[in-house]
Amino acid sequence: MENRVYNFSAGPSMLPLSVLQKAQAELLNCNGSGSSVMEMSHRSAPYEAIIAEAESLLRELMQIPDNYKVLFIQGGATQQFSMVPMNLKVNGKADYIVSGNFANNAAKEAAKFVDVNIVANSKPQNYAEIPAFDSKDFDPEADYVHITSNNTIFGTRYTQWPETGNVPLVADMSSNILSEPMDVSRFGLIYAGAQKNIGIAGLAVVIIREDLLSRSCDKLPVLMNYNTYANNDSMYNTPPCFAIYMAKLVFEWIKEQGGVAAVYENNVKKAAILYDYLDSSSFFKATAKKEDRSLMNIPFVTPSKELDAQFVKEAAQQGFVNIKGHRLVGGMRASIYNAMPNEGIEKLVAFMRDFEARNK
Amino acid sequence: MENRVYNFSAGPSMLPLSVLQKAQAELLNCNGSGSSVMEMSHRSAPYEAIIAEAESLLRELMQIPDNYKVLFIQGGATQQFSMVPMNLKVNGKADYIVSGNFANNAAKEAAKFVDVNIVANSKPQNYAEIPAFDSKDFDPEADYVHITSNNTIFGTRYTQWPETGNVPLVADMSSNILSEPMDVSRFGLIYAGAQKNIGIAGLAVVIIREDLLSRSCDKLPVLMNYNTYANNDSMYNTPPCFAIYMAKLVFEWIKEQGGVAAVYENNVKKAAILYDYLDSSSFFKATAKKEDRSLMNIPFVTPSKELDAQFVKEAAQQGFVNIKGHRLVGGMRASIYNAMPNEGIEKLVAFMRDFEARNK
Ligand SMILES: Cc1ncc(COP(=O)(O)O)c(C=O)c1O
Ligand SMILES: Cc1ncc(COP(=O)(O)O)c(C=O)c1O
Ligand SMILES: [Mg+2]
Ligand SMILES: [Mg+2]
Ligand SMILES: [Mg+2]
Ligand SMILES: [Mg+2]
Repeated sequence: MENRVYNFSAGPSMLPLSVLQKAQAELLNCNGSGSSVMEMSHRSAPYEAIIAEAESLLRELMQIPDNYKVLFIQGGATQQFSMVPMNLKVNGKADYIVSGNFANNAAKEAAKFVDVNIVANSKPQNYAEIPAFDSKDFDPEADYVHITSNNTIFGTRYTQWPETGNVPLVADMSSNILSEPMDVSRFGLIYAGAQKNIGIAGLAVVIIREDLLSRSCDKLPVLMNYNTYANNDSMYNTPPCFAIYMAKLVFEWIKEQGGVAAVYENNVKKAAILYDYLDSSSFFKATAKKEDRSLMNIPFVTPSKELDAQFVKEAAQQGFVNIKGHRLVGGMRASIYNAMPNEGIEKLVAFMRDFEARNK
Repeated sequence: MENRVYNFSAGPSMLPLSVLQKAQAELLNCNGSGSSVMEMSHRSAPYEAIIAEAESLLRELMQIPDNYKVLFIQGGATQQFSMVPMNLKVNGKADYIVSGNFANNAAKEAAKFVDVNIVANSKPQNYAEIPAFDSKDFDPEADYVHITSNNTIFGTRYTQWPETGNVPLVADMSSNILSEPMDVSRFGLIYAGAQKNIGIAGLAVVIIREDLLSRSCDKLPVLMNYNTYANNDSMYNTPPCFAIYMAKLVFEWIKEQGGVAAVYENNVKKAAILYDYLDSSSFFKATAKKEDRSLMNIPFVTPSKELDAQFVKEAAQQGFVNIKGHRLVGGMRASIYNAMPNEGIEKLVAFMRDFEARNK
C-alpha cells in the first residue's frame, strides 16, 4: 500500500492491513446483509453472529477455560481501574504492584473503594524495571493482587507471574494481550483496552473467573457491575458494535498467522531486530532493564535531547510516525504490537544506522 | 447503491450513504496521514483536529450556548441513567416523568442513588401518550427533573417542555436529538446515545450547563465523573476515536442538508407520508396518541397478529428490514431517523397499500 506510514504509536496503533481492507470492502454491505455493520441492530441475527464469533475466537486463541466469562465493556482500561475494586471488594483491601504509570493510576483509583497496599514499586528506578516482589509480601486476606503485565510507557513486562496463593491475581494486559501465550487459569481476572492488540479504541475485554462474579453488590451502577455483562452476553444495552466487529477481524487475522504461539515467535524475532541493534550501538541505548524488556514497547535514547528531537523529526519525514517517547521517559519509543510488520522494524533500524553514522 | 436495504431499525440504525462512502474512501488513509483514523494516536494533531471539529459542529448545529460543555462519553445512554443521579445529587431526591420503557429504566437506576419521585406515568396507557403533568407537581427541592424527549419504543415525543423553575431539566434525547431544533438553554443537561441520529454505537454525547459540574463528588469512579471529561476535552483516557470521527461526518452531513431546521422540515414531511397513509387506511392503524406522535419512531398495527407477522416477513423480502415492533407494543415500528431517505418511506407506503389491497 503506497502512502501508508509505519505507525509506532503506543495506542491507538497499527492494524493489520488485511483487516482494514476487509472492513473497507464490506463497509457498505456486510456479509450480503445490505447494511453496514455500523447500521445493524445489535439484536439482529447477523450482528449476534458477529459478537458470538468474536468471543469464540478469543476463547480459542487464548485457550480460555470454560469457567471464565468473556465480557465486552466500554470505557477502556481506565474503566477497569474502577470496576475491579468495586466488583471484587469483600474484605476491603487489595495488593498492588506498581511497575509503571498506569499501574500507579490503577492503584490510585482503587484507593477510592478499598484500602490499597503497595507491595512493590519501581518508581525509584523511574519504572525501568519490574520491581522485585516476594510471595510472602502478599496479604492472604487481600481481595486480590493487581499487576500490569506490560508497562506501555517504560517498556517492561513480567516474565513470571507472582505466586498469590488463593488470592486472585488480576492483570491489566492492555499492552501485551495476545502477544504471547498466557495461562489464563493463573488469573482471577484479566482486562485489556482494545486499541493495541485487539482492535480499536472504545472497547475493553474482561476475562473473569465465574466464582468472582458473586462478589459484586447490587447497588453498583448497572454498567459498572460485571454481572450485567455476564448475564446478558455483553448486550444488556447497545454494545460498541463496530469495535467488537473489528476485534473479530483481528482475532481472525491472528488465527491466520498461526495463533498466539506463532505470533509470539515472530514478536520475539521482531523485538530482537531492534534490541540487538540498540545493544550493538554505542550511540543509541535502550532504557529498560534487560531482563524485563517488553516485546511491545521499546523506549530508547540517543546521547542527547537535541539529537532525540532531531531523530523524531527526521523519522517522521521518512514515514516512521509517532515514535516520540512519553514525556515520563523522554527520547523515543517504538511500539511494535502484533500488527507492526517485520519490515517496519527492519526499515527503522536501517534508518537508525544511517542516523547514527551521520550524527556520531 | 444496489443491494442496500431500507433499514427501519430503532438503533443502531441507518447512516447517510454519503457518510459511509466517505468513511470507506479514507478508511486506509485518513486525510493524507498515511493511517486509518482507527490507528491514529488520540494525542496526535490529526486526531485532535477531528474531535475538536466534531464538538464545534455540534455546537453550531444545536446552537449550544457557551456556558455549556459538550462531553463525549462511552457506555451509551444507559451509562447516563447512572451518571445523572451520581453527579447531580445534592439534596438526594429527583423527579422523573415516566413516558416509556427507557424512562422507566432511567428512574429505576436513579433510585440506587437518590429518592426518585415519579411525577407522572403513562404506563396505564401502555405508554401510548406523554403523561399529563403540571408544573405544580414538581418538587422545588428536587435535584433535577428527568424526561425522555422521544420514546423510541412507543413512538411518542414531547412537543412542549415541562416548566421546572429553578430545578434543572434533564433530557434523554437519544432518539430525537438533531431531528428538530431544541432550545438547549431550557435544559440543565441533555444526553443521547449516538447510534440513532449522531453516528454509531459506543458513544454518548452529554451537554451540561457548567454550573452543574460543581455538584459531582470526588469519590466517584473517575470515568463516572463529568468533570473528568469537562476538564480534559473528553480525552482523560483514550476516547472511542472512530465513533467520534463518524459523529463528525454525520454532523457535516446535517450541515450540508441545511442544518437542524432544514432536517426538521424534511422530517415533518417524511413522517407525514406514513402517518397520512396510516390515518387514511382502515386496515393499518398508528398506535400512539395523535398529539404526541414521534417524528422518528412510528409504531403501527394491522387488524391481527397473524397479519402483522405476515407483513414483517413480506416487508423483509422486499428490502424493508427491522420493521418488527418491540415486544412491548407488538405490530410494526418504522424508525425513520434523519438518515432514512424520503424514498424509503414512499416505497414502504407503496408496499403497505399493496399489502392492504391483498389482505383486506
Ligand atoms: C497498560 C495500560 N493500562 C491502561 C491504559 C489506559 O487505557 P485506556 O486509555 O483504554 O483507558 C493504557 C493506555 O495506554 C495502558 O497502556
Ligand atoms: C430513549 C432511549 N434511551 C436510552 C436508550 C438506551 O441506550 P443504550 O443502548 O445506548 O444504552 C435507548 C436505546 O434505544 C433509547 O432509545
Ligand atoms: Mg506504563
Ligand atoms: Mg547501545
Ligand atoms: Mg421508549
Ligand atoms: Mg388507519
